[in-house]
Amino acid sequence: MREICAEGNYKYVISAYDEPIARVKPGEVVTFFTEDAFEGAVKTEEDLPGKVRGPWVNPQVGPIYIEGAAPGDTLVIHILDIQPGRPYGWSCLGRNFGGLVANPNTPMLNPPLEERMWIYQYRDGMMVHDRQLTFPWDPFIGTIATAPEKEAVRSDYPFCQGGNMDVSDVKPGNILYLPVSVDGAYFFAGDCHAKQGDGEVCGAAIEIAGRLTLRFEVVKGKALKNPRIESPEELICVGSEKPMEEAARIAYMELLDWMVELGWDRLRAYQCMSHEVNMYVGNIVNPRYSMVAKIKKSVAYRAGRG
Amino acid sequence: MREICAEGNYKYVISAYDEPIARVKPGEVVTFFTEDAFEGAVKTEEDLPGKVRGPWVNPQVGPIYIEGAAPGDTLVIHILDIQPGRPYGWSCLGRNFGGLVANPNTPMLNPPLEERMWIYQYRDGMMVHDRQLTFPWDPFIGTIATAPEKEAVRSDYPFCQGGNMDVSDVKPGNILYLPVSVDGAYFFAGDCHAKQGDGEVCGAAIEIAGRLTLRFEVVKGKALKNPRIESPEELICVGSEKPMEEAARIAYMELLDWMVELGWDRLRAYQCMSHEVNMYVGNIVNPRYSMVAKIKKSVAYRAGRG
Amino acid sequence: MREICAEGNYKYVISAYDEPIARVKPGEVVTFFTEDAFEGAVKTEEDLPGKVRGPWVNPQVGPIYIEGAAPGDTLVIHILDIQPGRPYGWSCLGRNFGGLVANPNTPMLNPPLEERMWIYQYRDGMMVHDRQLTFPWDPFIGTIATAPEKEAVRSDYPFCQGGNMDVSDVKPGNILYLPVSVDGAYFFAGDCHAKQGDGEVCGAAIEIAGRLTLRFEVVKGKALKNPRIESPEELICVGSEKPMEEAARIAYMELLDWMVELGWDRLRAYQCMSHEVNMYVGNIVNPRYSMVAKIKKSVAYRAGRG
Amino acid sequence: MREICAEGNYKYVISAYDEPIARVKPGEVVTFFTEDAFEGAVKTEEDLPGKVRGPWVNPQVGPIYIEGAAPGDTLVIHILDIQPGRPYGWSCLGRNFGGLVANPNTPMLNPPLEERMWIYQYRDGMMVHDRQLTFPWDPFIGTIATAPEKEAVRSDYPFCQGGNMDVSDVKPGNILYLPVSVDGAYFFAGDCHAKQGDGEVCGAAIEIAGRLTLRFEVVKGKALKNPRIESPEELICVGSEKPMEEAARIAYMELLDWMVELGWDRLRAYQCMSHEVNMYVGNIVNPRYSMVAKIKKSVAYRAGRG
Repeated sequence: MREICAEGNYKYVISAYDEPIARVKPGEVVTFFTEDAFEGAVKTEEDLPGKVRGPWVNPQVGPIYIEGAAPGDTLVIHILDIQPGRPYGWSCLGRNFGGLVANPNTPMLNPPLEERMWIYQYRDGMMVHDRQLTFPWDPFIGTIATAPEKEAVRSDYPFCQGGNMDVSDVKPGNILYLPVSVDGAYFFAGDCHAKQGDGEVCGAAIEIAGRLTLRFEVVKGKALKNPRIESPEELICVGSEKPMEEAARIAYMELLDWMVELGWDRLRAYQCMSHEVNMYVGNIVNPRYSMVAKIKKSVAYRAGRG
Repeated sequence: MREICAEGNYKYVISAYDEPIARVKPGEVVTFFTEDAFEGAVKTEEDLPGKVRGPWVNPQVGPIYIEGAAPGDTLVIHILDIQPGRPYGWSCLGRNFGGLVANPNTPMLNPPLEERMWIYQYRDGMMVHDRQLTFPWDPFIGTIATAPEKEAVRSDYPFCQGGNMDVSDVKPGNILYLPVSVDGAYFFAGDCHAKQGDGEVCGAAIEIAGRLTLRFEVVKGKALKNPRIESPEELICVGSEKPMEEAARIAYMELLDWMVELGWDRLRAYQCMSHEVNMYVGNIVNPRYSMVAKIKKSVAYRAGRG
Repeated sequence: MREICAEGNYKYVISAYDEPIARVKPGEVVTFFTEDAFEGAVKTEEDLPGKVRGPWVNPQVGPIYIEGAAPGDTLVIHILDIQPGRPYGWSCLGRNFGGLVANPNTPMLNPPLEERMWIYQYRDGMMVHDRQLTFPWDPFIGTIATAPEKEAVRSDYPFCQGGNMDVSDVKPGNILYLPVSVDGAYFFAGDCHAKQGDGEVCGAAIEIAGRLTLRFEVVKGKALKNPRIESPEELICVGSEKPMEEAARIAYMELLDWMVELGWDRLRAYQCMSHEVNMYVGNIVNPRYSMVAKIKKSVAYRAGRG
Repeated sequence: MREICAEGNYKYVISAYDEPIARVKPGEVVTFFTEDAFEGAVKTEEDLPGKVRGPWVNPQVGPIYIEGAAPGDTLVIHILDIQPGRPYGWSCLGRNFGGLVANPNTPMLNPPLEERMWIYQYRDGMMVHDRQLTFPWDPFIGTIATAPEKEAVRSDYPFCQGGNMDVSDVKPGNILYLPVSVDGAYFFAGDCHAKQGDGEVCGAAIEIAGRLTLRFEVVKGKALKNPRIESPEELICVGSEKPMEEAARIAYMELLDWMVELGWDRLRAYQCMSHEVNMYVGNIVNPRYSMVAKIKKSVAYRAGRG
């Protein structure tokens, strides 16, 4: 297993403009430390967002150059493990950020919300603040992406190659598939969460530094339009757009495409999805919302038996 | 148990303008037959929507007058049972209706989709069309509501007193809470579904005639803003609006209010929801979208122990 | 000219459930007094919305039965004149209403806005508060509709048969065309505005009682999907929906249909609109937004010369 | 007057990652040729979009380094002139692009629209196709921006520093104000339009190569959140977001800020805007919609006389 170190060299955009910090071969297992969303600045509950939050959030480890990946391929990321990067995590309310407050994209004349910070200790598989605010350790990667061909995308944006999706299915045991747009894929990850509900509604999950263990593969000549995830039991697709129904449509359509690739007739797959698909909110707080469509493999794999 | 008969007297708006078809006392168990969304017109797969669909859909049984219910109360509906009203159900694709096609509210110049009709037989707890298109019997009530004070709402609209929410948690074993706006509540139900995925994406679930068994209670002097559902394990709230993020906000906020009623500090409840709430799409096809927020009772009931 | 009196009998839903207050023949000129949005409750600037606003707004004069109008016809309303119903008007900020504040459809945890009330005196063709806040008298009808077949629509909602569109082109000198869904059309009007910018962004125009003078005609057998307006120089269509792009699409499509009726090829009309149409915001504050598409007659009438 | 040449070196992202092609001093008048949206590939009406459109559209001239501009400043662009870059322009319908068709951000299962191309000749101040499709020469700059600090934004996206806004007020005689985020501002422009209606609804204006004449100034230490425009008579602000109501809110809020800078009390400015602002659709076809708020200077400048 190989360790990659990004310390002091975090990135705040997903792009191919930066020099790779490491080159990895398909099949190699790598591990690296990722900073939390505020780059480790939160140490006590007095460290309110307005005080410690910098102009940029979600520091990324990357770009990591994946040998052999080329435009039009799919990068396969096996998420093997996420360990706590520090013995604690945090969550907060910001003045102008969150799903139920005015924010720069939904500007309002109402006075802002008050700020709050909560620090959670990692203890026996739980994130513990007090008796009410204690939640199971159920970690996932909040921001994970490959670089676009020409754009540089802020690390707080989700987009068609991943990014700040805040989708809780990007977790150990699952496989993430991302489109490749440049030679070497230029992979980024960061912004781990110890636990998050659907939507990340207050604007923050339990934000943690993490230690990730990943293995990469490349599928040559298979182009995706949007991120896909495979769990042991399900096929999962993510759409990121505004308004939320557009994100949902993108996720439904990506899953429909997947079913057609498995052998389904297009309109029969649409019919099947109407009865069997699940659709949950990844995030309702980022500059684009992420919606997640999933279907049981036991249903999707019926195609061959049609 | 008392039987109510609406045959030949279905309603296509939710309102207090129509005469009650029955008066029911709190605690009474009632049963009634509900027609399917196209009022029984589908008999073969040649009965395409453009041929058999009338100008109105989702025929409703009602209004049922609930003794003792008054404006500002909450109507409690115990959903005891749903049986198939006929030995088959159906689903379809319409030319201008569904989550992934142009429709009157999202008009497009693209040519319309082709129409299709599928008929599913009820057999041993399954709805069976063919090997690919077979789904478990998992029925719920698609349209269920109390009447607004002055409005008459089309039976294909969801709104703050229920209506065509198409939320799969409105199912046997669960309890639905609806606001009461007029004396007697004026309760309506219809449009049962044998099985539906999140969003009812193709525009139709497996549509069935049903036989419902319900028991009503009234909670005096407790006003809700939006529908709430209680399952054995969860608290569930529904928001119906467009765009979808507004529906989600309404559902989140209703659940937040519920937690505050249970004893939570408002901002701590917001924090808690960010880590523990689930949010899924009820429908993405009706004139308003419905979003469903849920939280485990084991989490929500921590308030008293805070 | 005939006077209609609705005093003490205002309606808060647009519907055919209420008894007509008058029957009018096509060609007849009628005049009537309309109350302001808060039914005359505002008398001083201490009459803040939270104090004087009732549960219902936009009191309507109606229904007026138009002889000879039948489902599938178009009701033509010549807006001949609007005079001030009182020597003053008012405008206000409400705690939870307006385009730049949280509201019941966009619920937020932010504290509400403070309330304010301004009273404007009508003086020499101006609405005068002080040197900054003085605006020309440029009146129009905020809420105007025909009744749906079965629904009863709140008088603060715009919809496909008009309603609370808050579109400033519904003004003297222009002609409004509305779909007819019931025998007699069941016409309603109220909620006059002395002056309004695009969007009615603070939630209120300069709200006035008005004295309307209208003349009705009926076009037999011509069904519209949405309201149309004709000014001396322009063809104008209104779409009301959420999100705003859906309202815009509906308005564009209605105008496209109009151009096709004038003889345009459908895709050439689409091309023409891309270069010549105007599209402004009617309202961004009601439960549905209204968008207004307009094109110069000198362009639209080129069809016959194509 | 100085000429800048970008031939063969067009950019498809707005960023500071590219080397400046020229350095310009405040006060200098510069002129340059801009290619049309398809980089000059359209020569006949058989050149349908599916045949000639490359993967990137809206080739940009830039970056142009403006001496003395630094982060936190405002770049002032005096639009002195736009001349036709070729004797013709074109407009088209694409299969999956436009305001009234399914597209990648609003994916639908409907079949795509047919393609069309129209070529317009510039003749005596008109763009002429045939008797129906003839429009006045009324040119503006469709895409114009300064570079973000870290991002690289596709030239078909509008954003808070300009970009592909497609706002017809970016025209000769007006002044555009853009935020500066990097030393030298890194200015870009391209994608001129001979004529466009509100929304650019079919997906294309009359697209032209242009010859621009601009003069730049820098306002030190004045930071804007979004683009502003000054015409001889009006103050104008642009918001770009999805859904469209968010774009409108951003534009309203930017204009409100401008009025407050002029001396208005915040809530009185909100009141004033409700009666005097205009709000039109810039584009309904790009990955973000642009909305344009404007107010007459004669109203906005009343602040000092309040």
